[in-house]
Amino acid sequence: MALTDRLKRGFVGRPIGSDRLGETLLPKRVALPVFASDALSSVSYASEEILLVLALGGITLLHYTPWIAAAVVILMLTVVASYRQNVHAYPSGGGDYEVASVNLGPRAGLMVGSALLVDYVLTVAVSVSAGVANLTSAATGLAEHKVLLASLLVVLLTLVNLRGVRESGTAFAVPSYAFIVGVLVMIVTGLVKTALGDAPRAESADYHIHPEQSFTGLFLIFLILRAFASGCTALTGVEAISNGVPAFRRPKSRNAATTLFLMGAIAVTMFAGVTALALISDVHVAENPADLIGSNGEEQRTVIAQIAAAVFGDGSPGFVYVAAVTTLILILAANTAFNGFPVLGSILARDGYLPRQLHTRGDRLAYSNGIILLAGFAILLIVVFDAQVTALIQLYILGVFISFTLSQTGMVRHWARLLRGSVAADTDTDAGATGAGAAAGASAGSGDSGEKLDDQLTGRVPLEPRMRGRVRRYQVVSFLGACMTGAVLILVLLTKFTRGAWIVCIAIPVIYLCMQGIQRHYDRVASELTPEPGPPTLPSRVHGVVLVSKMHAPTLRALAYAKATRPHTLVATTVAVDPAETERLRQAWEERDIKIDLVVLASPYREVTRPVLEYVARIRRESPRDVVAVFVPEYVVGRWWEHLLHNQSALRLKARLLFQPGVMMTSVPWQLESSSHAQTRRDHAGAGAVRRGRVLPSEQVRPGNGSGT
Amino acid sequence: MALTDRLKRGFVGRPIGSDRLGETLLPKRVALPVFASDALSSVSYASEEILLVLALGGITLLHYTPWIAAAVVILMLTVVASYRQNVHAYPSGGGDYEVASVNLGPRAGLMVGSALLVDYVLTVAVSVSAGVANLTSAATGLAEHKVLLASLLVVLLTLVNLRGVRESGTAFAVPSYAFIVGVLVMIVTGLVKTALGDAPRAESADYHIHPEQSFTGLFLIFLILRAFASGCTALTGVEAISNGVPAFRRPKSRNAATTLFLMGAIAVTMFAGVTALALISDVHVAENPADLIGSNGEEQRTVIAQIAAAVFGDGSPGFVYVAAVTTLILILAANTAFNGFPVLGSILARDGYLPRQLHTRGDRLAYSNGIILLAGFAILLIVVFDAQVTALIQLYILGVFISFTLSQTGMVRHWARLLRGSVAADTDTDAGATGAGAAAGASAGSGDSGEKLDDQLTGRVPLEPRMRGRVRRYQVVSFLGACMTGAVLILVLLTKFTRGAWIVCIAIPVIYLCMQGIQRHYDRVASELTPEPGPPTLPSRVHGVVLVSKMHAPTLRALAYAKATRPHTLVATTVAVDPAETERLRQAWEERDIKIDLVVLASPYREVTRPVLEYVARIRRESPRDVVAVFVPEYVVGRWWEHLLHNQSALRLKARLLFQPGVMMTSVPWQLESSSHAQTRRDHAGAGAVRRGRVLPSEQVRPGNGSGT
Repeated sequence: MALTDRLKRGFVGRPIGSDRLGETLLPKRVALPVFASDALSSVSYASEEILLVLALGGITLLHYTPWIAAAVVILMLTVVASYRQNVHAYPSGGGDYEVASVNLGPRAGLMVGSALLVDYVLTVAVSVSAGVANLTSAATGLAEHKVLLASLLVVLLTLVNLRGVRESGTAFAVPSYAFIVGVLVMIVTGLVKTALGDAPRAESADYHIHPEQSFTGLFLIFLILRAFASGCTALTGVEAISNGVPAFRRPKSRNAATTLFLMGAIAVTMFAGVTALALISDVHVAENPADLIGSNGEEQRTVIAQIAAAVFGDGSPGFVYVAAVTTLILILAANTAFNGFPVLGSILARDGYLPRQLHTRGDRLAYSNGIILLAGFAILLIVVFDAQVTALIQLYILGVFISFTLSQTGMVRHWARLLRGSVAADTDTDAGATGAGAAAGASAGSGDSGEKLDDQLTGRVPLEPRMRGRVRRYQVVSFLGACMTGAVLILVLLTKFTRGAWIVCIAIPVIYLCMQGIQRHYDRVASELTPEPGPPTLPSRVHGVVLVSKMHAPTLRALAYAKATRPHTLVATTVAVDPAETERLRQAWEERDIKIDLVVLASPYREVTRPVLEYVARIRRESPRDVVAVFVPEYVVGRWWEHLLHNQSALRLKARLLFQPGVMMTSVPWQLESSSHAQTRRDHAGAGAVRRGRVLPSEQVRPGNGSGT
Repeated sequence: MALTDRLKRGFVGRPIGSDRLGETLLPKRVALPVFASDALSSVSYASEEILLVLALGGITLLHYTPWIAAAVVILMLTVVASYRQNVHAYPSGGGDYEVASVNLGPRAGLMVGSALLVDYVLTVAVSVSAGVANLTSAATGLAEHKVLLASLLVVLLTLVNLRGVRESGTAFAVPSYAFIVGVLVMIVTGLVKTALGDAPRAESADYHIHPEQSFTGLFLIFLILRAFASGCTALTGVEAISNGVPAFRRPKSRNAATTLFLMGAIAVTMFAGVTALALISDVHVAENPADLIGSNGEEQRTVIAQIAAAVFGDGSPGFVYVAAVTTLILILAANTAFNGFPVLGSILARDGYLPRQLHTRGDRLAYSNGIILLAGFAILLIVVFDAQVTALIQLYILGVFISFTLSQTGMVRHWARLLRGSVAADTDTDAGATGAGAAAGASAGSGDSGEKLDDQLTGRVPLEPRMRGRVRRYQVVSFLGACMTGAVLILVLLTKFTRGAWIVCIAIPVIYLCMQGIQRHYDRVASELTPEPGPPTLPSRVHGVVLVSKMHAPTLRALAYAKATRPHTLVATTVAVDPAETERLRQAWEERDIKIDLVVLASPYREVTRPVLEYVARIRRESPRDVVAVFVPEYVVGRWWEHLLHNQSALRLKARLLFQPGVMMTSVPWQLESSSHAQTRRDHAGAGAVRRGRVLPSEQVRPGNGSGT
């Protein structure tokens, strides 16, 4: 086995057969940490973001915090409720992209796709950078290597994810639960202490905040709205589960909905608890540390760290535990994107918006190309923005709120059509969502009331009358969600545009246009490749041309094979780059008594390719309906350095001949002994590199998906 | 025309036809600066090297200088005299390599080849670095960019040389002559002034030199020998003309010998003159400037600059002129290597010691690959040694003295065999040296006494009795030269080994072994490719296999063509990576009523390549004497980004099938509309890239030289 293969096996693991795909599906207890780490980790900075913005108006504005936090909680609960319906109605993993495509048209879908692709990349960049920032503020010696460290962490995540979904789920389950437990214990301890009259007190409780300016009237309202917009970072990651439904164990939709509920409940509890403790312990933070009057001028610690210090005591085991798991969950939050991006990319590729390679599962059944692409872009962002969270966070959440808004608007239409009974027309779109998999599911858990419900919600079976009220309720929830997230989207645009969000406002349309261009290309190719009806027609005549450079064994083999194909005419041609060599060839031709004519082509500029191309073109001009069959004798060497020792003229000639219409090109290889090295090496390499095709049963089958040979 | 082609035309110029090769040959007045700039430029540092070494023993040892300089002059005259005979006896441009190969065996030749390749690279690195050092000690602002500057100069030289020999000759003639004139005027002026009692006096005349240690007895002798070894740098470049004979106008040998004589005379005059003036004007230099007592601690100027300042006055136009042309000639000296290295590389490639691509003339008839290789290695050395002349010069002249010694030893044997009359047996080796060119030369200048002499010296015609005395004299000169250069070689090894020459002592054997390995590879390939005698035998049966991924136009074309080749059996195969797609293909197969069987291959690991390879191997196992003809339908796109959008499975499959014995592989291309873009682009690109073959009439024609298709 070659070294590269060994390395790959070591890092990625042994290949897994397509039939084992079911085994990599996730139980709820693993799916929760895999898909929710992003949403949960945002708890660690959402409260802080609200406090930071309000602090601009001075300490007195902090009393607005509970109201803003409450608004965020309401928004979050609405969105979670709304998405619990999404996973039932659209269980294929297309998530928001599919909802928008089906209900609002392909342009809206593409818009959502572009926005989500951008946001996934930002999720990785922001989360990893935030984690590294936390780490380096503890271990200051590493601060100058922030960019390198963040990039290495992205590479590590990439390797873990290339091993496949389930194993990365296991790897991330422990830290996620550790974080949840840590924060919940901290909240309970803090609240109990408060109830007992021993309220925790933050190190910054006595600091005064110097207001940047005084906010009144409209300015005050704008500031409060901006604080709310910043707090909405808590919502990021809610959509992850709806995009990840196919990775759940059956019954997929119900499990996903339950996980979504669990995630929402935990996130809201943690967000509310942390915000409450921040107010109880009087945590004071400011964007510009110099505005903190009374502080010793040192770097201010994060809100969650200050609360942990206040509750457990600075430097206590409890504090260290919370600080450590917070750092860890921030880095792991990036993993959510590693689960979401490749699946979305594969669906976009399936629909012809992205290169087909993104629709290829690797050795371990993960969408390897998508994972690598995500990692590449995330590292690019980390390098460009120097791993600075403050800069990156301004680009963030724009994409996800575009997605929220369009998706829920789409759901309003979905429910409306369901009530009208006109969703059935779309079943071909969702067919793949169950397809072969649904057949298996039906035999296993048929008669299950949940499945029946799902069938009605997706529109596969007509809506029962008693369900209409329920669907109306769903529609109201979706409508509320759409309005609220739409409002937040506008808010985010207004408050963050000049701070960096403009980059995203350029990136999303650019990606949109690229994907549109790619789709047009695929469409054009598909229509050009559509065959005329009827059986294949034979070419009228075949002219055989054997390319000869000198008289050696491959040449003789090519001549023999060319003769065996019985073309209508057959000649051998050689390019006269060296008169002496040509003469020797002519002599050898006579000596061996070869009955095929040898045509000598002149080459004043010592070229090999052009005279052959011109000769072939001449034959074609003379008889345009005939076919020219070019036979290229070549010998094959096995070791990489041996390739350097042989002119690659044959390779280049073949590449150029491909562009000549009506030319068939036959390689007549002659394997030198050393080629057996390469052959052996490849035989031992295990399951090889060229893979293709879709094996996920729940994916959709469409005529446009074919291979690109 | 594509941008890259435009760029290439701009830098390199329009391509030149093979028939115009004669036009690029050099008249003597251009050949002198082209081949002699290396030898002449060494005048600017050879005297200095002697003074630097002697200075280690203090100022009193400087009185040995005239004797050492005289020894160098005698050595130089001997070597020049000896090489004037070489160019007559071996006019093919093989130079020392050919002399050593023919007379001492291929191993000695390979040794010389390795040594010269290394020395050519060092010539470029040393000369350019020395030129840049001169330049940057004038313009100190550039000092920190020395490496970049030197690398850019190498790139510039590369471009000039890629334009072809004659034009680079013209570009270099003016500065070379300017240097010769400048130095000669300086010497004459200085000597006239001395004769008139107004002897020039150097700025360092009053400095005292602090001796590193006192040298007596054996140590003194060793120091004097080391000074002599250092002075021998003056000899570098003498071999350049003997390697460049084919680039001369006819009569090549005589013109080359005359140029060699001119070069020797000029170099000796300049070397003697500069050394004399250095002594007259009391120039004092030291390796370590701190040893110069009385100096103001500034960087000491070069000897030639100090002399120019003393003769013409510091800052005078004469001084500036000499300083400028010295800098220029040092940079241009590198050009000698640019003429020598590619020719030597091409000859070594012709003999199978180096990859054949080095034997390919580019658009402008220069050996482009050799030029680029030389530039690459030289830039590597410059970067590694930080463009420091003091470090690089220690590696220098070892290779050239290996070459001198072996070549002249070989010449002693050549003359001996000529006297015995046994050289005739070698005429096939020298045949190429005249070959087609000699025929032309014979008709043009036949009856010329010089040509007759050459014929006798090369051994083509028997030696006339009256010539024997002359040949004996030649032999003595060669013997003297061999002894002297051999002694210098040992001296150089002893005095420079620990100072860096050990690197060369590793590099030369490594290159030697590589070249031996390459030759063994070519030999093995040639013997494997030698065909059995007799006409080609037809394969017993042909099994046709058409690879199908889906039902589109290229597939139908491939089926039709495969049928037209009338194989004994014909099936279509598809790899079942996706059950639904396979099913669709099967339906389309029936709908179109295709009479060819469709074989579906299972692929549990979603691979495309392996099942096909195994299927083909199975057919071959069942009937090992038959041939499998694989037909691969492919579609061709034209734009680079379009390639990213299509899986390259066909390409990889084709690459893998090449290793399967008994498999013929036919590409059935289908040109999409966009492919016409690429076609048009290529048609406009002018004379294309793939060239091959030898057009220099004086080159040797051997059976082993063929193409590597």
